[in-house]
Amino acid sequence: MEKPILVGLLGLGTVGSGVVKIIENHQEKLMHQVGCPVKVKKILVRDVQKPRDVAVDPSLLTTSAAEVIDDPDIDVIIEVMGGIEETKELLLRALRQGKHVVTANKDLMAVYGSELLRVAAEYRCDLFYEASVAGGIPILRSLVDGLASDRITKLMGIVNGTTNYILTKMSQNGASYEDVLAEAQALGFAEADPTSDVEGLDAARKMAILARLGFSMDIDLDDVQVKGITQVTEEDLNYGKRLGYTMKLIGIAQRDGQKVEVSVQPTFLPDSHPLASVHNEYNAVYVYGEAVGETMFYGPGAGSLPTATAVVSDLVAVMKNMRLGVNGRYAVAPQYEKQLKTPAEIFSKYFLRIHVKDQVGAFAKITTLFSERGVSFEKILQLPLKEDGLAEIVIVTHDASQQDYEDILQQLGDLEIVERVQSSYRVEGEKR
Amino acid sequence: MEKPILVGLLGLGTVGSGVVKIIENHQEKLMHQVGCPVKVKKILVRDVQKPRDVAVDPSLLTTSAAEVIDDPDIDVIIEVMGGIEETKELLLRALRQGKHVVTANKDLMAVYGSELLRVAAEYRCDLFYEASVAGGIPILRSLVDGLASDRITKLMGIVNGTTNYILTKMSQNGASYEDVLAEAQALGFAEADPTSDVEGLDAARKMAILARLGFSMDIDLDDVQVKGITQVTEEDLNYGKRLGYTMKLIGIAQRDGQKVEVSVQPTFLPDSHPLASVHNEYNAVYVYGEAVGETMFYGPGAGSLPTATAVVSDLVAVMKNMRLGVNGRYAVAPQYEKQLKTPAEIFSKYFLRIHVKDQVGAFAKITTLFSERGVSFEKILQLPLKEDGLAEIVIVTHDASQQDYEDILQQLGDLEIVERVQSSYRVEGEKR
Repeated sequence: MEKPILVGLLGLGTVGSGVVKIIENHQEKLMHQVGCPVKVKKILVRDVQKPRDVAVDPSLLTTSAAEVIDDPDIDVIIEVMGGIEETKELLLRALRQGKHVVTANKDLMAVYGSELLRVAAEYRCDLFYEASVAGGIPILRSLVDGLASDRITKLMGIVNGTTNYILTKMSQNGASYEDVLAEAQALGFAEADPTSDVEGLDAARKMAILARLGFSMDIDLDDVQVKGITQVTEEDLNYGKRLGYTMKLIGIAQRDGQKVEVSVQPTFLPDSHPLASVHNEYNAVYVYGEAVGETMFYGPGAGSLPTATAVVSDLVAVMKNMRLGVNGRYAVAPQYEKQLKTPAEIFSKYFLRIHVKDQVGAFAKITTLFSERGVSFEKILQLPLKEDGLAEIVIVTHDASQQDYEDILQQLGDLEIVERVQSSYRVEGEKR
Repeated sequence: MEKPILVGLLGLGTVGSGVVKIIENHQEKLMHQVGCPVKVKKILVRDVQKPRDVAVDPSLLTTSAAEVIDDPDIDVIIEVMGGIEETKELLLRALRQGKHVVTANKDLMAVYGSELLRVAAEYRCDLFYEASVAGGIPILRSLVDGLASDRITKLMGIVNGTTNYILTKMSQNGASYEDVLAEAQALGFAEADPTSDVEGLDAARKMAILARLGFSMDIDLDDVQVKGITQVTEEDLNYGKRLGYTMKLIGIAQRDGQKVEVSVQPTFLPDSHPLASVHNEYNAVYVYGEAVGETMFYGPGAGSLPTATAVVSDLVAVMKNMRLGVNGRYAVAPQYEKQLKTPAEIFSKYFLRIHVKDQVGAFAKITTLFSERGVSFEKILQLPLKEDGLAEIVIVTHDASQQDYEDILQQLGDLEIVERVQSSYRVEGEKR
């Protein structure tokens, strides 16, 4: 039997336990592919006494990071403990000792991914992070290898399971955001503090990682415009239904020439769009390539075993490269300088719902604001409201620049006949 | 500038033209990834004079296979000409000269894939064939690398665009198979001779390739049970709709323990199944892994540029391996001996539509046949028919073995009260 490849595990929570289980239960398949066994040698935990839902030899557990990172026998570090600053230092230390790294840490990769990848390349180490985006879906490898020959122009992702679960239930049950969130928390689909999910930050981190790979540029988390779902109402979803739209929290990364935009926001998609049928806690990434056209990758975005699958598949890649002595040699540095679009260069359709005073000429005043900026309407609904003397107007625009649209919104708010701007969403995914 | 990698192209039809265009138009991206240019040196064609929709230096064209295969300067052979026996000999000759091979040829890979892969491994050559299944969708690489750590238990594929287009239009427009086929032929979505598509043979080839990779066994084309869509009627689709089902031509490869089944047949799926929303000429492959759960890969299954994307992405992989001197070293031989399930071991639900004489006790006689074999009903519809004295019965069974079900069908046909068995389909994709 050949000498085993030894792994050091940082963290033994939900994903870490899954990694231990898969390495154990799928050992036969792993050995067949790599030609030698693989073993977990040390596991960094916070509390060695804590009861766990996976059986682990207690002698593997340690509370000392150095015992894992600096162990000269350990070939690969798997990082599933989370955290940013301290974790980054540990992984840099591992890479500088020639250890390969697999991480599921989107927070870390969104903020320090470029730096970590540079150091990995310098020390000829593999640094893989498939599990950091969309859990069990092998989307990063598909972008890098599967679509290696194409030029990707658009990525749209449902990359946060919690918000997709909430929006699905709101839509199916006609329930309010607050009620569904409470139910999701009770069922374990949402955290006690759901801020990072519902405000879109979690999705933004994943979009930064996707955009960096898809467009081969050093995109940072700060480059992502972010809006969460906390303001979405049942009424908005109902109007969407009447217009043939489904609401999703969509991360969009789009490239026109060398200029890119990246955002996360609640977005209406046509019901016929592939992403519109992605329900509950599932994730999906839609990729548009110049040559390939439309593709979509669908699967579980989180969970112990699905995420661990991605981690261990990365480990298999590291081990195959080790056997051939080519670790770190397949990595490709970003090809382009980052160029972000200005708001005047970002175009989309918009859905707008406003309450106006039911007066003669009110609608004309509103349309004037749009037509002055060359923005025309694709769809209009006007309905009386129960509230006295008010009417509700729902507009779907044709393509408008973000700059023009935001100017219009501002001026609408200033019009005396406009009682309030009720809601406003981007509309995406229609054939142009 | 580094020495270019030289490619010999066999065939310059739809896919071949796309390959030439992508190598030319995306040269900058290819060079960035591989570090050297890539050039097409020779192209085998049947007629050098034929007008083509891609601009090619006429001096590259040849009608002599030897000029391409035996050119010592050519590093990689891209085979997009089709054919089986003769093509196999050419590719074996190329591999034995140490040339790497990329092919889009599903007919060849379904029949001689195992042999070609063995020879490639022997000569340390890469043999990649991503384009042979589901066109532009990087599904083979996802099975091999992306899900490397998991054990796949089920693959369901919509892997033939023509039949998916026909079934989509029949369902949307309530039109007959014959009418939609004629329309599809007029629009170029179906061949003048559509036999290989509509009888399921094209899909069977792709399922043999998918099953071989997914289950790591030498599955042959002969192992695939095949039934096409020529007998599907609008009435069947309408009954499906009433029951919440969508009909698709589904390739199923399923593993229980070490035993596998592979089939292609028109199948009812619940409307909520991810594959049910795959419309028109699009393809998708649904993959169920023990750890990852449900994933799906969606995209264009054919077309010049989408298929060429898969071919050139394979070429990129070959070139990266060449740079590192590790061609042929990542290939993994099948892990398991093939074991096919017998009909008594293949279980599924079935949809059955029969016409019976409207007599007292007729239904009881039918149910007796099922209950004698322990097959129970999930859903039953009984409706009077316009035809005198006949009733129509639609049954959806619970799980039954193929053996039991076929015995029942046979005996039903022998019952005096059964006028005819109108249609019968497998029902898949429901939670069990």
